[in-house]
Amino acid sequence: MNWLLPEYIADALPPEAARIENLRRTLIDHCRGRGFEYVMPPLLEYLESLLTGAGQDLDLRTFKLVDQLSGRTMGVRADMTPQAARIDAHLLNHQGVTRLCYCGSVLHTLPANVSAGREQVQIGAELYGYGGVEADLEIIRLMATAFERIKLPLARVDLGHVAIFRALVETAGISADAEGELLALLRDKDVPGLGVATRQLPSPCREALLALPTLYGGPEVLERAAALLPDVPAIAAALAQLRHLIASAPELPFSLDLSDLRGYHYHNGIVFAAYCPAYPAAIALGGRYDGAGEAFGRARPATGFSMDLRQVAQLAPAARPQSGILAPYAAGDRLLAGHIAALRERGEIVVEMLPGEIACEGPDCDRKLVLVGGQWIIEAIQED
Amino acid sequence: MNWLLPEYIADALPPEAARIENLRRTLIDHCRGRGFEYVMPPLLEYLESLLTGAGQDLDLRTFKLVDQLSGRTMGVRADMTPQAARIDAHLLNHQGVTRLCYCGSVLHTLPANVSAGREQVQIGAELYGYGGVEADLEIIRLMATAFERIKLPLARVDLGHVAIFRALVETAGISADAEGELLALLRDKDVPGLGVATRQLPSPCREALLALPTLYGGPEVLERAAALLPDVPAIAAALAQLRHLIASAPELPFSLDLSDLRGYHYHNGIVFAAYCPAYPAAIALGGRYDGAGEAFGRARPATGFSMDLRQVAQLAPAARPQSGILAPYAAGDRLLAGHIAALRERGEIVVEMLPGEIACEGPDCDRKLVLVGGQWIIEAIQED
Repeated sequence: MNWLLPEYIADALPPEAARIENLRRTLIDHCRGRGFEYVMPPLLEYLESLLTGAGQDLDLRTFKLVDQLSGRTMGVRADMTPQAARIDAHLLNHQGVTRLCYCGSVLHTLPANVSAGREQVQIGAELYGYGGVEADLEIIRLMATAFERIKLPLARVDLGHVAIFRALVETAGISADAEGELLALLRDKDVPGLGVATRQLPSPCREALLALPTLYGGPEVLERAAALLPDVPAIAAALAQLRHLIASAPELPFSLDLSDLRGYHYHNGIVFAAYCPAYPAAIALGGRYDGAGEAFGRARPATGFSMDLRQVAQLAPAARPQSGILAPYAAGDRLLAGHIAALRERGEIVVEMLPGEIACEGPDCDRKLVLVGGQWIIEAIQED
Repeated sequence: MNWLLPEYIADALPPEAARIENLRRTLIDHCRGRGFEYVMPPLLEYLESLLTGAGQDLDLRTFKLVDQLSGRTMGVRADMTPQAARIDAHLLNHQGVTRLCYCGSVLHTLPANVSAGREQVQIGAELYGYGGVEADLEIIRLMATAFERIKLPLARVDLGHVAIFRALVETAGISADAEGELLALLRDKDVPGLGVATRQLPSPCREALLALPTLYGGPEVLERAAALLPDVPAIAAALAQLRHLIASAPELPFSLDLSDLRGYHYHNGIVFAAYCPAYPAAIALGGRYDGAGEAFGRARPATGFSMDLRQVAQLAPAARPQSGILAPYAAGDRLLAGHIAALRERGEIVVEMLPGEIACEGPDCDRKLVLVGGQWIIEAIQED
């Protein structure tokens, strides 16, 4: 049973692997075409570098290893975003805006949910050094046009803003323990539980926390939010940012979900989640995480998005795989060898069959090279 | 010091990362164009699957992890070849010839040498189901044309054949311990040590083992080998295979090194190592490893090659990086936004600068979009 793979770990075999590879190229080129430079951070780092800013959530999901050279604990990355922040903060050391993109495997000790694998191919883009909402818009547009480019329909982009909940916590003087409990209740949209947990809290924070799970829907939610949430500067600013973002990109299918607090400990501004039609889980996640480079010596404004290419490959329409040409074994036949080389030069897949090789294994071949009257010609393979 | 990476672990930053990505695409397409189907095996597997056939050498180089779902030991792959063999043996289950290629990170607990990294980007191709020397030739030609494709000069391809040493061990009735000692001495080309270690061995095996380190050089080495080595069928067959291979590909810069026994426990036929001019280490390694799929339920003839893309990227000539165009922030300007989209559609890198963004960070931009008399035109950026 040596061929059995661990649970939630899988091979990608030829048709799927080719799709993932094609999507990878298209999406990297899409990001590069907009000035996002491609970087390749390593699979392994010292654990404390990988967990910077990302909190305990990432800690439990990260595989740990001992470095035989230093004796220190290393981790296999579970997320490439902290690595991009490290590169921006320390290595590139640009003074202005830095745009980075990346694509690589990340490993999780346990699957995030029953449909997620423990090895994901994370592709993403990050923009550093710009605090204005124009940067959030650039990242969301980059994501939306990436969906277009790979013909993945975008049903909606849910927007949230973690500063709203944070302002309520501060205004009401909520302890860290109670904050954690409220976060869990909001994540589960557990309204009765919220009612119990907020019983001791002062007005209007209590009412605001109870209202958060209802602040979900179209852009009109912003008006309801302004009416229901306390009039504190941080909340007013957050709502104004969201309003500005929505007004700036009328082409995008925005909706709001002000209780979406995924990555709360990590994010500190506008957050978003992109959905496809008829698929319940978010396909791409992103948002602002200013100051993420602080642990690496340089706090910088930051926003970005990422997604799992293996999941995307299941949803994006498949391109028809390229079919090939079967050729006989050339041995010393220079004319035939030249023909095969010329066809490959033109981008054709040509399988030169070994002496006695049985046909039709491997890539789908719909044509063959045959010798007719001293000339090598390409002929369609007749299906039986 | 959070930004410090472990020793022998490195980021690939924009110029290098772009080179590796370009080489990756070129080489995968090269293999696919010859009918080698792209597969993506996982980073993690149960340890016993990863170590099949590869022996203790790979065991010590493999990072081990505990699977929280099964309690079993998993490894992070240190080599993708056993994974390809597993896919051929079990998953594809083709009866005829299977051609596979792959590209991905592999991790080593310790660097193989001072110039090797602990994270390599392994790219390779494997051919299963064909025992004839034509398959070895196909793989070596695939490798040699891959070098051509990326303009990496090929100084020589050293050929060896592990059946020669194995036949000497069997003929002389050498114990497993003594075999290991002889292997180490041959690896170090330690002729005095060999003299001592072979003192008790019978003729002509003793003389043959002492002669092996001298059987190095051009194709004429095969004639010397035939004269110096005992006339046993396995050795005669090995020399005949090498002779046939060399005669079949006069275009290739073959040389011989009959004491090269890298991967001896794994290989069982023709092995090869490809070198570039003025670089001491082998760039690509490969050879025959028939029966590798046995542990997965199906023993199949097998041969293949692989190399480390990070090393290749240091040696292959760099393509000139694509330079970009700076564009002002489009905001609601649909004419400008349309221009930018059209340029990107044509494959240009266009950086749309955010309000107040300082120029010249990120990709090298040699042109800019400017408004002249109501028209957006592209203008060269004057260097100071």
